[in-house]
Amino acid sequence: MGKATINAAVYDAHGNPAEVLQVRTQPWPICAPDEVIVAIRAAPINPADLNQIEGKYPIRPVLPATPGFEGAGVVVETGREAGHVAEGTHVILPHNVGTWREVCAVKATDLVVVPSEIDLVQAAMIKINPLTAWRLLHDYVKMKPGDWVIQNAANSAAGRAVIQIARELGLNTVNIVRRAEVVEELRVQGGDVVLIDGEALRDNVKESTGGAPIRLGLNAVGGDSALRLMNCLAPGGTLVTYGAMSLQPLKVPNGLLIFKDLRFRGIWINKWYDDASPGERMEAFNQIFEMARRGLLKTNVEKAYLMSELKAAVEHAAQGKRDGKIILQFD
Amino acid sequence: MGKATINAAVYDAHGNPAEVLQVRTQPWPICAPDEVIVAIRAAPINPADLNQIEGKYPIRPVLPATPGFEGAGVVVETGREAGHVAEGTHVILPHNVGTWREVCAVKATDLVVVPSEIDLVQAAMIKINPLTAWRLLHDYVKMKPGDWVIQNAANSAAGRAVIQIARELGLNTVNIVRRAEVVEELRVQGGDVVLIDGEALRDNVKESTGGAPIRLGLNAVGGDSALRLMNCLAPGGTLVTYGAMSLQPLKVPNGLLIFKDLRFRGIWINKWYDDASPGERMEAFNQIFEMARRGLLKTNVEKAYLMSELKAAVEHAAQGKRDGKIILQFD
Repeated sequence: MGKATINAAVYDAHGNPAEVLQVRTQPWPICAPDEVIVAIRAAPINPADLNQIEGKYPIRPVLPATPGFEGAGVVVETGREAGHVAEGTHVILPHNVGTWREVCAVKATDLVVVPSEIDLVQAAMIKINPLTAWRLLHDYVKMKPGDWVIQNAANSAAGRAVIQIARELGLNTVNIVRRAEVVEELRVQGGDVVLIDGEALRDNVKESTGGAPIRLGLNAVGGDSALRLMNCLAPGGTLVTYGAMSLQPLKVPNGLLIFKDLRFRGIWINKWYDDASPGERMEAFNQIFEMARRGLLKTNVEKAYLMSELKAAVEHAAQGKRDGKIILQFD
Repeated sequence: MGKATINAAVYDAHGNPAEVLQVRTQPWPICAPDEVIVAIRAAPINPADLNQIEGKYPIRPVLPATPGFEGAGVVVETGREAGHVAEGTHVILPHNVGTWREVCAVKATDLVVVPSEIDLVQAAMIKINPLTAWRLLHDYVKMKPGDWVIQNAANSAAGRAVIQIARELGLNTVNIVRRAEVVEELRVQGGDVVLIDGEALRDNVKESTGGAPIRLGLNAVGGDSALRLMNCLAPGGTLVTYGAMSLQPLKVPNGLLIFKDLRFRGIWINKWYDDASPGERMEAFNQIFEMARRGLLKTNVEKAYLMSELKAAVEHAAQGKRDGKIILQFD
């Protein structure tokens, strides 16, 4: 490729992303024999990215660092041992390359090849939220068609993926949201029951489900919202935590553990990704791609920013009330 | 048997045990064909008994009721279809007969036969605490010799049973207590590490174990004590709650679920007992009896009371600082 340099987001110290991030020019990366060079097309700004820049993430990078756990692009150059990934192939990047840059070198075996008919902006947002939703519905409770699952933060990207994947699996969902405006939209996306959170939640859930036992709860909020989910679960049920929007810890009454036999787990999708074999990853991705081909699992984009608008992009991403993801788009 | 009547503890309404309990005379029970009559020799006063009298237990009995989840005695009469349990057999009673009475009728198939060389007072205290300890060490984390387990309330009857069973299984124990006076005693009973709870617990545990990973934590306290246990567990570890002495809920930081992959469970031993097959029960009891024969798993008795001293007995049992169980003894 002709260009001699690329642009990359970089921070030298942890802190407020809008203050510590800069765009710097870097040399075009060198392609090792087992690597390919990927021209990145899109990278979302996820909460975990902001946490890592702030220094609040459990893994701290060597500084200066380029953020970005997710992204997708096109292979533009291949090392001599990486010829099985042809130039022009669409790929999802692993979470350790720093995707907020125009171009990166990456080991060919760390890439996930994406069918070319899937939009690359959508592909850039598959590895965290739809994959988390997939694992949440597969790894914790053995579910069968007709079973119920309950989730809070149902209007989030992961929550919407849960609704659509649950539908594919024949599961029924109870979806808890905070705002009345999104109820109808989630119903249209396939949410069987959509309810507004509040003190009467347990009774409302019971009424809406006909008292069906709910053995799986998905929690991205914590605090009181998580407690209300616990009280909706059947004895022996499992609550899986994958986010903490309220920043409040879970409060678990002892009786729910001892007498109700509730079980509590958590998932860190990047850890799952690292521990999984390529075969295990592709088993999930292939089914997610198959849904994406049918127009499902589309993540809403609130706004796409260019690298030159980086500060505005991270400020927008840090705002609570959005109707979709903030993404960085390159080209 | 000659007597026409028996004495039984009875309460007509939930409330403070010392106020609502009375001793009443009842007719000698009638023995159905599949039942035996047991002359009860000893029944402990457990926290769960007091909770049920107070109306704070998840299952409420039909009133008036006789309390007592545990007890042991001697078969004195057998129904014609229960001849396989001979008169004179020592037995442990199930948890649904109300053991705070001199004599009861019980289905022969619900009894656990106890080897006659085991003291009946000790036998009366096996079905809750040693059995809980047994299940805690077998049902939640696959352990192998040399592995570590950590527990709070290590000086309780269940905690001491954990120490001794863990030793039999070749496991190492970290035992957390509140009082310095009991440290030496628990060491003598086989506790590998015995520490006093406090803010520095995590560092103290690390130093005492050489930083060995601890994948199983046993919690009978809740609240801050449970949180300190969580912080001592290795990634992927499990905290099992079986008691709630502090009356405080568990507070679980989201990061311990998401990033540290801690798992939270609870156990209700009476539920386990009901769900288990006779074979599953006896598999545990036989090994516990084998230990008891060697003088292990002895529960300290602080004081034995007669039925005529019932009020004093429950008042004593409700006191926090004791060196052993309060039991009711009959004869």
